[in-house]
Amino acid sequence: MFSMNAIGYVRSPFQKTTEVPKGLGAKHEAEGILEIREEFGAGLTDIEGFSHLIVIWAFDRSSGFDLMGTPPSDDRPHGVFATRSPRRPNPIGLTVVELTGRDGRMLHVRGIDMLDGTAILDIKPYLSNVPSERLRRGWLAEAEERAEKRI
Amino acid sequence: MFSMNAIGYVRSPFQKTTEVPKGLGAKHEAEGILEIREEFGAGLTDIEGFSHLIVIWAFDRSSGFDLMGTPPSDDRPHGVFATRSPRRPNPIGLTVVELTGRDGRMLHVRGIDMLDGTAILDIKPYLSNVPSERLRRGWLAEAEERAEKRI
Repeated sequence: MFSMNAIGYVRSPFQKTTEVPKGLGAKHEAEGILEIREEFGAGLTDIEGFSHLIVIWAFDRSSGFDLMGTPPSDDRPHGVFATRSPRRPNPIGLTVVELTGRDGRMLHVRGIDMLDGTAILDIKPYLSNVPSERLRRGWLAEAEERAEKRI
Repeated sequence: MFSMNAIGYVRSPFQKTTEVPKGLGAKHEAEGILEIREEFGAGLTDIEGFSHLIVIWAFDRSSGFDLMGTPPSDDRPHGVFATRSPRRPNPIGLTVVELTGRDGRMLHVRGIDMLDGTAILDIKPYLSNVPSERLRRGWLAEAEERAEKRI
């Protein structure tokens, strides 16, 4: 078993999960702040050179998990590891955000989809993309295609 | 505090950290298997439609952390959250792998940099890239540039 502690908290405009944009075509452009705890502040040295960060956080207002579930972006069920469902065996969330500025231990970011007060577990620099000609997006691409045909 | 348990284990050709390619220009093309525990097998449903997966795992052979450190790809120190150092406040590792095949609870993947037996905490589908014209790679881009000038 592994024990994790918050290295900081998300300051977000979203108080409830219903406020977070979800489903096909949802845009994640909300701005917020990653507030890192004072004792870890030195760990942010040189982070401002990166345009994008990977934020690993805890689904701290979700409990339990389902191995199968129907995501907001589809009308068919899929395995939890093929979705971003919050009801996971380990309640780990991941969001790629754009770093727009840094003010000491406060990272100003765009693209958050976490709730206000969410515990941050780790931050890593976003270093490289998957070559887009090799990226396949499974059921999500199929759901998008079906939605397009319905328009 | 958050408690996490392994959902499975990595089968890797690497037994020791010294065997894992590191530093500038290191290629991560090693093949291995993500073996998911039987009780979580149903969570893999439809995962084979995705070409790439985000694997979140535990640095289970690392202990303690340093807020500053000099990564293998540079000769200057940087903050831990601006690097992929294993010595992090929460020992969370992240690797994007290519899914080359699935055999029940065994996911055959390319691009692993984890040690054999590493505990897997979560798997998520890789859904989208950051637009490459907007991606800045901070100290890593600078270190690459300096290395190029030395050649």
